[in-house]
Amino acid sequence: MNRQQLIDHIKGKKNYLCIGLDTDPNKLPLGLKRDISGVIEFNQRIIQATADYCVSYKINTAFYESMGAAGWEAMQETVRAIPETHFRIADAKRGDIGNTTEQYARAFFEHMNFDAVTLQPYMGRDSILPFLSYENKWAIILALTSNKSAEDFETMPLTNGRKLFEEVILQSAQWGNKGNTMYVTGATRAELLSEIRKIIPEHFLLIPGVGTQGGSLPDVHQHGHIHDIGMLVNVSRAVIYAGQGEDFAEKAAEAAKEYCREMGSLLS
Amino acid sequence: MNRQQLIDHIKGKKNYLCIGLDTDPNKLPLGLKRDISGVIEFNQRIIQATADYCVSYKINTAFYESMGAAGWEAMQETVRAIPETHFRIADAKRGDIGNTTEQYARAFFEHMNFDAVTLQPYMGRDSILPFLSYENKWAIILALTSNKSAEDFETMPLTNGRKLFEEVILQSAQWGNKGNTMYVTGATRAELLSEIRKIIPEHFLLIPGVGTQGGSLPDVHQHGHIHDIGMLVNVSRAVIYAGQGEDFAEKAAEAAKEYCREMGSLLS
Repeated sequence: MNRQQLIDHIKGKKNYLCIGLDTDPNKLPLGLKRDISGVIEFNQRIIQATADYCVSYKINTAFYESMGAAGWEAMQETVRAIPETHFRIADAKRGDIGNTTEQYARAFFEHMNFDAVTLQPYMGRDSILPFLSYENKWAIILALTSNKSAEDFETMPLTNGRKLFEEVILQSAQWGNKGNTMYVTGATRAELLSEIRKIIPEHFLLIPGVGTQGGSLPDVHQHGHIHDIGMLVNVSRAVIYAGQGEDFAEKAAEAAKEYCREMGSLLS
Repeated sequence: MNRQQLIDHIKGKKNYLCIGLDTDPNKLPLGLKRDISGVIEFNQRIIQATADYCVSYKINTAFYESMGAAGWEAMQETVRAIPETHFRIADAKRGDIGNTTEQYARAFFEHMNFDAVTLQPYMGRDSILPFLSYENKWAIILALTSNKSAEDFETMPLTNGRKLFEEVILQSAQWGNKGNTMYVTGATRAELLSEIRKIIPEHFLLIPGVGTQGGSLPDVHQHGHIHDIGMLVNVSRAVIYAGQGEDFAEKAAEAAKEYCREMGSLLS
């Protein structure tokens, strides 16, 4: 999916909601088997119920890898269940030397049909460039994450006057462009989004941390949005685990619809 | 495997060689099928032929993920083929927020029986701590990697006088201890190993970059080794692709034996 298609999709549906499929077999609702088949059925029903109220899905690879090869199969099935219209993100946080990064790009862009992958910047451009050689695919680089220990290193001040996450954004924005690079910037640090917007006024941001992690949607919207929207806001647990009974899909749809409605009113 | 067992194993075999199983189906030698079954057979024969000349194997997860669920199955088969005596490393370079990191730990320590996993420090302690809660298992944290673009961020100077990779080592060494934490420090920057040894005089280092990437084993040995050895030196392509014919396993054994011999003479 290219940038204009993504913008058109968001404007058409009047929301920028990404639903995170962090599906834990131990948290499946009543009535579903707590195994791979249960995970696949859960995801399929969540996707069916919520597709009208979001523009993107994000698959957290860890939750599938913890089930081994069968979990990887469940991930593949889940990607297939996402409509072509929706932006498909592998939240894999990969990063390695060049010849290895090429293998990861092949895994997520060729073997599976994801539109984007989240990436670790620590090892530098070798971890990013192979993902940028695919047309209409995206690298989503970790900049300022939503977890508390983002302060361990990401916000450390460098001698050049910038913080580490600002340096990551500044350098890596040169490796690609606004049509193939996004940044992860956590909603729990919404006040810093304005600072980030000064460095990258036009890039898309993938913003986790709204919902269970406590980030505020109006704050995020105020500091992060641009004329071309420029944001995908991810909510995982607060949508997919909204209900614990047999009506879990309806409850998830209600939760998604509420975020969707709130985004619509912020956008108008 | 605990620290003393690893040291005893190294001293008993008089080498600290780790063989990297970066197995690419497109590079399999003549006579093997270029598919999953070929990858598994290749790995099994390489392991059988080289186990006497190394103390550890490192599986590069990217090369398996690029083949999808079947590749993940091949990885599981490969871990099973590694003798219990050998230190089994998942070179996965994972890192995420706490609840997700727990899933990765489950994947590599419970679903598969790895002894250690390589980890990304960018997001801070949330990406590391869940791995340290397992007994006799190890976190191997990226510090100074062997690729050229390590200079993009890893070596950047911080206002506290340290470089980023030094800060990563200094902080993270407090999260665990020398019995459950190692560091990736590339052989291509051997002269910096002495500096690293001043910060962590007793931790084990996992040192890639000898072989195809050009690092020097005597330099690495001189700057990195300690009384308790404290090093695993990884060689991947220069061992596993030493031969391209039907005698590939014998050629790999010869290459491993030569590294093993060189390490033995450096140790004595």
